[in-house]
Amino acid sequence: MGLVWLVPIAGIAAILLAVYLIRDTLARDKGTPEMQDIAARIVEGANAFLRRQYMTIGGLAIVAAIAIGVVLALLSQTDIDGDAVVTSADKLGMGWRTAVAFLVGAICSGVAGYIGMFVSVRANLRTAAAAARGGIREAVAVAMRGGAVSGFLIVALSMLGVTGIYYAYSADAKAEIVPFLIVGFGFGASFVALFAQLGGGIYTKAADMGADLVGKVEAGIPEDDPRNAGVIADLVGDNVGDCAGRGADLFESTAAESIGAMILGVAAYVAATKAGLPNAQVWILFPVVMHAFGLLASMAGVFSVRAKEDEDPMNALNRGFYVSVVVAVGGLALATFMMLGQVVGNPGWLFGAGLVGIATSIAFVYITRYYTEGKFRPVQDIIEGARTGPGTSVVAGTAVGFETTMSTAVVVGAAIWASFWLGGHITFPDGSPVVHGGLFGIAVATMGMLMTAAYVLAMDAFGPITDNASGIVEMSGAGSAVRAVTDRLDAVGNTTKALTKGYAMGSAGLAAFLLFSAYLDTIESLKLGQLLQQGVAVAQATAQAAEFRRVDISVPTVFIGALLGAMLIFLFSSMAMRAVGRTASAVIDEVRRQFREIPGLMEGKARPDYARCVDITARAGLREMIMPGILAVSLPIVVGVVLKAQAVAGFLMVGTIVGMLLATYLNNAGGAWDNAKKTIETGTYIPKGAKEPLKKGSAIHAAAVVGDTVGDPFKDTAGPALHVLVKLLATITLVMAPLFL
Amino acid sequence: MGLVWLVPIAGIAAILLAVYLIRDTLARDKGTPEMQDIAARIVEGANAFLRRQYMTIGGLAIVAAIAIGVVLALLSQTDIDGDAVVTSADKLGMGWRTAVAFLVGAICSGVAGYIGMFVSVRANLRTAAAAARGGIREAVAVAMRGGAVSGFLIVALSMLGVTGIYYAYSADAKAEIVPFLIVGFGFGASFVALFAQLGGGIYTKAADMGADLVGKVEAGIPEDDPRNAGVIADLVGDNVGDCAGRGADLFESTAAESIGAMILGVAAYVAATKAGLPNAQVWILFPVVMHAFGLLASMAGVFSVRAKEDEDPMNALNRGFYVSVVVAVGGLALATFMMLGQVVGNPGWLFGAGLVGIATSIAFVYITRYYTEGKFRPVQDIIEGARTGPGTSVVAGTAVGFETTMSTAVVVGAAIWASFWLGGHITFPDGSPVVHGGLFGIAVATMGMLMTAAYVLAMDAFGPITDNASGIVEMSGAGSAVRAVTDRLDAVGNTTKALTKGYAMGSAGLAAFLLFSAYLDTIESLKLGQLLQQGVAVAQATAQAAEFRRVDISVPTVFIGALLGAMLIFLFSSMAMRAVGRTASAVIDEVRRQFREIPGLMEGKARPDYARCVDITARAGLREMIMPGILAVSLPIVVGVVLKAQAVAGFLMVGTIVGMLLATYLNNAGGAWDNAKKTIETGTYIPKGAKEPLKKGSAIHAAAVVGDTVGDPFKDTAGPALHVLVKLLATITLVMAPLFL
Repeated sequence: MGLVWLVPIAGIAAILLAVYLIRDTLARDKGTPEMQDIAARIVEGANAFLRRQYMTIGGLAIVAAIAIGVVLALLSQTDIDGDAVVTSADKLGMGWRTAVAFLVGAICSGVAGYIGMFVSVRANLRTAAAAARGGIREAVAVAMRGGAVSGFLIVALSMLGVTGIYYAYSADAKAEIVPFLIVGFGFGASFVALFAQLGGGIYTKAADMGADLVGKVEAGIPEDDPRNAGVIADLVGDNVGDCAGRGADLFESTAAESIGAMILGVAAYVAATKAGLPNAQVWILFPVVMHAFGLLASMAGVFSVRAKEDEDPMNALNRGFYVSVVVAVGGLALATFMMLGQVVGNPGWLFGAGLVGIATSIAFVYITRYYTEGKFRPVQDIIEGARTGPGTSVVAGTAVGFETTMSTAVVVGAAIWASFWLGGHITFPDGSPVVHGGLFGIAVATMGMLMTAAYVLAMDAFGPITDNASGIVEMSGAGSAVRAVTDRLDAVGNTTKALTKGYAMGSAGLAAFLLFSAYLDTIESLKLGQLLQQGVAVAQATAQAAEFRRVDISVPTVFIGALLGAMLIFLFSSMAMRAVGRTASAVIDEVRRQFREIPGLMEGKARPDYARCVDITARAGLREMIMPGILAVSLPIVVGVVLKAQAVAGFLMVGTIVGMLLATYLNNAGGAWDNAKKTIETGTYIPKGAKEPLKKGSAIHAAAVVGDTVGDPFKDTAGPALHVLVKLLATITLVMAPLFL
Repeated sequence: MGLVWLVPIAGIAAILLAVYLIRDTLARDKGTPEMQDIAARIVEGANAFLRRQYMTIGGLAIVAAIAIGVVLALLSQTDIDGDAVVTSADKLGMGWRTAVAFLVGAICSGVAGYIGMFVSVRANLRTAAAAARGGIREAVAVAMRGGAVSGFLIVALSMLGVTGIYYAYSADAKAEIVPFLIVGFGFGASFVALFAQLGGGIYTKAADMGADLVGKVEAGIPEDDPRNAGVIADLVGDNVGDCAGRGADLFESTAAESIGAMILGVAAYVAATKAGLPNAQVWILFPVVMHAFGLLASMAGVFSVRAKEDEDPMNALNRGFYVSVVVAVGGLALATFMMLGQVVGNPGWLFGAGLVGIATSIAFVYITRYYTEGKFRPVQDIIEGARTGPGTSVVAGTAVGFETTMSTAVVVGAAIWASFWLGGHITFPDGSPVVHGGLFGIAVATMGMLMTAAYVLAMDAFGPITDNASGIVEMSGAGSAVRAVTDRLDAVGNTTKALTKGYAMGSAGLAAFLLFSAYLDTIESLKLGQLLQQGVAVAQATAQAAEFRRVDISVPTVFIGALLGAMLIFLFSSMAMRAVGRTASAVIDEVRRQFREIPGLMEGKARPDYARCVDITARAGLREMIMPGILAVSLPIVVGVVLKAQAVAGFLMVGTIVGMLLATYLNNAGGAWDNAKKTIETGTYIPKGAKEPLKKGSAIHAAAVVGDTVGDPFKDTAGPALHVLVKLLATITLVMAPLFL
């Protein structure tokens, strides 16, 4: 069966490499005692937050698992053993299998997030120490390798989890049923991802805003000043939001999108089996093999990163990305021609579709850079806006953010169109057409785009590691030369974080189609089961069930579903932003209290109680994540139960479109505002018609800082949470489909 | 045929009343010579802008009319004479009729806008004079009656235009074809509305921001100071944006929505004619009769407005609104039971659907007030946000704006659901079901909601009139007691402007369904014509054509269309905002130049050159409206030609959903920011946990002013332009449908 043996090999290789990288990181120089002291507090704070967060999420997950098990044991219509009757054993089996898969998915996601953060909060210290010794090259290597632990583990656990559960459930179920049995895994992963990203996003921005507003604005002390009780919470926040949160996001992407592609493969599998063609399981197992090649490509990329002392470190990371891309193209060729070539007469079309996916990932990298780097027109528009005050700067950023939706829509639309067209040409080896061949093209494109996921994740985790390193250097009182090194790395980290968001959103957009079709396959097969059980003749039932998969948005219930799906995106973003505001108030109150009540704090004679501030932020942030999370989980179910299966499909599809575009707006506007401020701070930007460059501390800089403050909850809380929300909608509707008939 | 005779009576009554109100307004006291001088400059500036704007729009409209005529003469498939063959005479007839209807619609819209503004720029002076004499009661009456001229004329011209063209085209075409012949009228109206609202919106905010930024911020002189060259442009802007722009918007609503409902009535008309039932034309002519009753209801409302000296003038306007509502309910009862009762066995269901529409209009009034008045939680959230700086204030306003999409989506969704359900019960008098009965329920609900359109428009025009009155009082140096009166009226005007936007968006959302179904009817009948001409048998062609009206969003091209439709909304908003920024720069440069180059200006010894500033703003604003306008007109055509009819339907429907929600966000966030600032300025708001009220001039007030600046182009340029865009998409796809097969 082709290259399935690659999956355990690549998975185990990735895990071994991650272990090696963890040991390598831990063995490196830990810098001065001051640095170690600060880093220890970050470790402590991060552990405290994660412990508390996982307790909350764990409790919610157990409740959800039980609910899923009960609902499916009562309502599912899946004929697991293939005896053409849906017995109560089938129903019960569907219930427990989905509930178990849900928990496994949830646990894997949690483990991947935890280990990634375990390394990240230690790599920060080693990066700071390397920078202190003046070596930008070593600092880049430490940060990148620390980040790679997350990247490798997340993709490997996702791939091994899906494959493992596939084989476990294959023992007593027909092969074409198994993909439907494991959708719980994707739901578990997205359930954890939603809360991890939302809780982490609220925490990180509340701590950031709270610490800044009291420290910089009220008390007039610098950012990251050790007297500010909120600074450790701020540094912890970078890890929990960008590292653990985004890790859970991409864990979920790779898992859910594999499952969507597997469900899509079922139709081809059934047709191939009927026709007596060999290796029919290739149709179902292809996605995990693509991930295996992707892991290998990402490894090659990570180990090729070598920064030169005198260049922009971003160039080094970009070279690594292109190494990944080149290796991924090779892997794609092997996967399509060697593996899919066994079941497809003309695999070249699918190779083309995979290239479309890889090209899409590159396009997103360029688009994000254009819209968020200071040397291009959009960020400069914001700076020009800042010349007439904060209001016009915010309006300019809003216009830039809205404009970026164009590239997202055009690139995703073109990728769907091209890969669908390419896939539409595929045939079985005997020349007969493949059902849903076009959708299979989209599946291969999605997998192609995700091949570089582990590398992109490593770059993403580079962000919080260097950000933390910069904070540690600042707080430990290292010299300005050291700060110059870490500031450079920090700026690169901002870019990589923005890239990852674009990439995550783009892949979610491309994958949306797989998940839609998986949902439609699910409701079609459920309807067919229901009709057959009601004694409807097979031909008529098949026709009726096929009719059931059409999502006609001109039908009022479907339109209302679509309207509510779009609305959920706005409402959820609104709740996430308000949550940041309320949590930040808690931080502000606590930092103010410490300034007031701890004697000698302002004079530097006493230390603030960092742990208490971390704890308060964590409590408030986690409390605030509950309501939006519950809204996101319950609204699709309510719509489905009241307005039925097609309305949920409209809800899902239009929710996905709006989610994708609004997240693009929020992420890119936030990134552009941030970099408008940073560009002014470099002291090199000369505005149109002026002779002097803008300076830090000027009124124009102050106006740009307002934009940056606005952008913080946009790009680090609401935007990233929307990626996860979009995918959660897909997995929740898949799992809960039996409720919607 | 029932009550069709009411249409000319109500129409002529409305026009006569408008003439009476114009004479009444002109006959009133014109105040001091200073006031008259300023008012004369506003009149001059408004005329200059409108002349220039209508020249531009006229040129574009002629090009568009020719293009439409040519395209339809080549490609249309409508069998005008009903001889079952589409001849070149049919095609040519379709071409010229649509082109003529387009031009008539465009001209009517222009005339209505022009006359409304003619009165508005004169009523402002009389309102100021009435206020100067201390009579809030008379000031309210003058402003309301001046506004009513717009309201009456716009609704009357729309109703008479649609009815007139219906009868004119009925001469040589079958009755069921006529509604398809007059869709050009709606397109003409929305074409003018798009440019009028966009150009007016860009002009008004660019003048406002430009004048404020140089005057208040740079030169440190008060708002509306006569030394500022931009102030007249600012006062002109209020009229061209809020009065002419919104007037064109609602002219288009009443026209396009009538036509949509008429097309919907065609199926019932055909069925009733076949069954030999009497009065079948009622099905088609019902919408204009509803408008006639609506006009009468609005007249009753306008003439019942009596402000008491010691009350909030808003209460007087609200009482008038409720008088309109009560009379509208009576009219609805007559229209449904007396007119529709002739063709429907159970008109009570439609009465219910109409009540749903009226209730929806009331709901929008309450929702808008909740989200934009200072006494409720949302605006207070923004004020609380301002306590920690402008950034947090902007974030709080964004969260509030996003949140408001919930009520819009829920109210529109519930109204569609309820009226569809009610309409689904209707039958012919013989008890046989009516095709698309549910959609007819939605049509009646839409017409019910629009019954109060003339009253709402009168309230809307109240806004710029009182705003101008306030400016005239300020600039003519009247005492603070007079200013207190006009400030109160101005605040009320802000609320009525916000209400109108909510109302316009809500009615557009409800009407969207009619326009979708009109589009689907159109492509179905075009496809049927095409198939029959290709020699396909009738039964098979009918089935294939019926299939053609399904908009399955899970089909990739439809999904891509939907994605691009959603994207257009964001991109168009982005372009509108950037246009404001660029136009404002032109204003800023000119005001600065005059301060610099006119000797004695700053000392009040010389007058600025207002006219030049008006002219520069007009040129820049009109130049900037071209690109977004062309994008809006061309993208749906490109999508239709490339991706075909169903993809355009997806584009239209999802574009409508996103447009409705994004406009809701932009309008309400803008209104809430504005009122957060105003609430602080009242000096009565005491923040949570504080003892002193906030004051004008404090840092918190400055933070709120930033929010207000951000909100200006949101609520007065991009948001209102989106209303029109959404309806333009519907009419353009209707007219251009033959291109998309």
